[in-house]
Amino acid sequence: MQRISLTIEYDGTNFAGWQMQQGRRTIQAELEQALSVIANQPIQVMASGRTDAGVHALQQVLHFDTNIDRSEYSWVVGTNRYLPAEIRVLSAQIMPSDFHARYSALARWYRYLILNRAMNSALYGRLNTWHSIALNAEKMAEAAQFLNGHHDFSAFRAQGCQSKTPYRQLYFIEVQAQAEQIVIDICANAFLHHMVRNIVGSLMAVGEGKQPANWIQQVLLSKDRTQAGITAPPQGLYLAGIYYPEKYQLTSAPIFQRLPKTISRFD
Amino acid sequence: MQRISLTIEYDGTNFAGWQMQQGRRTIQAELEQALSVIANQPIQVMASGRTDAGVHALQQVLHFDTNIDRSEYSWVVGTNRYLPAEIRVLSAQIMPSDFHARYSALARWYRYLILNRAMNSALYGRLNTWHSIALNAEKMAEAAQFLNGHHDFSAFRAQGCQSKTPYRQLYFIEVQAQAEQIVIDICANAFLHHMVRNIVGSLMAVGEGKQPANWIQQVLLSKDRTQAGITAPPQGLYLAGIYYPEKYQLTSAPIFQRLPKTISRFD
Repeated sequence: MQRISLTIEYDGTNFAGWQMQQGRRTIQAELEQALSVIANQPIQVMASGRTDAGVHALQQVLHFDTNIDRSEYSWVVGTNRYLPAEIRVLSAQIMPSDFHARYSALARWYRYLILNRAMNSALYGRLNTWHSIALNAEKMAEAAQFLNGHHDFSAFRAQGCQSKTPYRQLYFIEVQAQAEQIVIDICANAFLHHMVRNIVGSLMAVGEGKQPANWIQQVLLSKDRTQAGITAPPQGLYLAGIYYPEKYQLTSAPIFQRLPKTISRFD
Repeated sequence: MQRISLTIEYDGTNFAGWQMQQGRRTIQAELEQALSVIANQPIQVMASGRTDAGVHALQQVLHFDTNIDRSEYSWVVGTNRYLPAEIRVLSAQIMPSDFHARYSALARWYRYLILNRAMNSALYGRLNTWHSIALNAEKMAEAAQFLNGHHDFSAFRAQGCQSKTPYRQLYFIEVQAQAEQIVIDICANAFLHHMVRNIVGSLMAVGEGKQPANWIQQVLLSKDRTQAGITAPPQGLYLAGIYYPEKYQLTSAPIFQRLPKTISRFD
């Protein structure tokens, strides 16, 4: 038996999210179908985490087990032949048997893109959240800093969230204006359900001037979801990268160099 | 009678280009239809230049005449209501009657985007030309410099090109590698038909190492289309900006600050 990891990217627009659901088009279902053709046996995959309907991925990592011997090249090129153009396998790697796409992950990086201008984009509409009211990115950046560290994030947690604990370690969060776009990068050991989108919705309230920057701290300390802002739409959200222990030799995005030198998944 | 200019952007993927053609979906046809609804009279538009099927625009400029009095806001927001999401009017401006979208333009800027990596993109496939063979952007940049200046560009001119002269003034051309993308910016007083795509196709031959950098000069001097490279595909090409005399007070992209201080359209 071999454990294989895949790094994939996808445009989530026309999918009901990552996870298999009867009768719905999902990323997981498409991948398992394509991999099962290549392996000539049923393949089940485990991802680093689920993404919701409409959410994109620039780097999602998953693993599966198989007793079929194929080259890394075949797992990439062969699988892509059976996938829709909106999902691409970027690389494959044979892994030690203790690797687990979800449980070995030490940190996740999400990116949120807001197109902040009067008109929506003719070209990038599917890939941004369009917001026509002017947002003050500096205020948003100031507000975001209150979220750094180890906190109970109940105020930014969706009702149906199945996590056993509301605590997460937020390593960094950055808000930058780049031309007409606002780019929000957020990195934590893991995220609660809708946590990024609820944080972004609250930062947007600050950006619009409806709330002062330190309101975010009040919301966080309240641990009360009804105190926070709206859930920002899915089309601006990207799972941008996953960080694993170096021993697994998976490529990791340069942004993870900002993480503390020693971290464990129990941080 | 009022002359109005519009600045628009479009995703050219699903259009047969700019120009009206019987029974085809074109940008011009969509715009004239939408504007005619807003004006409640037939409107004909004149663009800075045509774009081919599949080519995008980040800043296309056009003008039209009307005796209907509408606010600039109405021409923008009203027209967008009747346009498909792939075409957006960004701004409208009432112009002096001597303004002409095509004949007043002093320079045009095109951008060409190549995604240079093993796999196509799940997210940006429509908006790049995907090239899996590694390209050397530095060699391409070196080759591009031979094209600067006033030349007979017959070697890069499509057979059906209707221009009276093969001479054009190329102001600058720049090739940069940005992560997995190669970005080519090219600015001239005007362009022959397929000129940008034929230049890019030839630069790609240099980037692949099939030709040395100075081969571009030989091609240029040959004035022979059969000496040059392939016509690069349309999906990587963007009409990125148009430069008009300052007296018209149209917003122009910062890149045009590199133009010589005094230029005329007869350069």
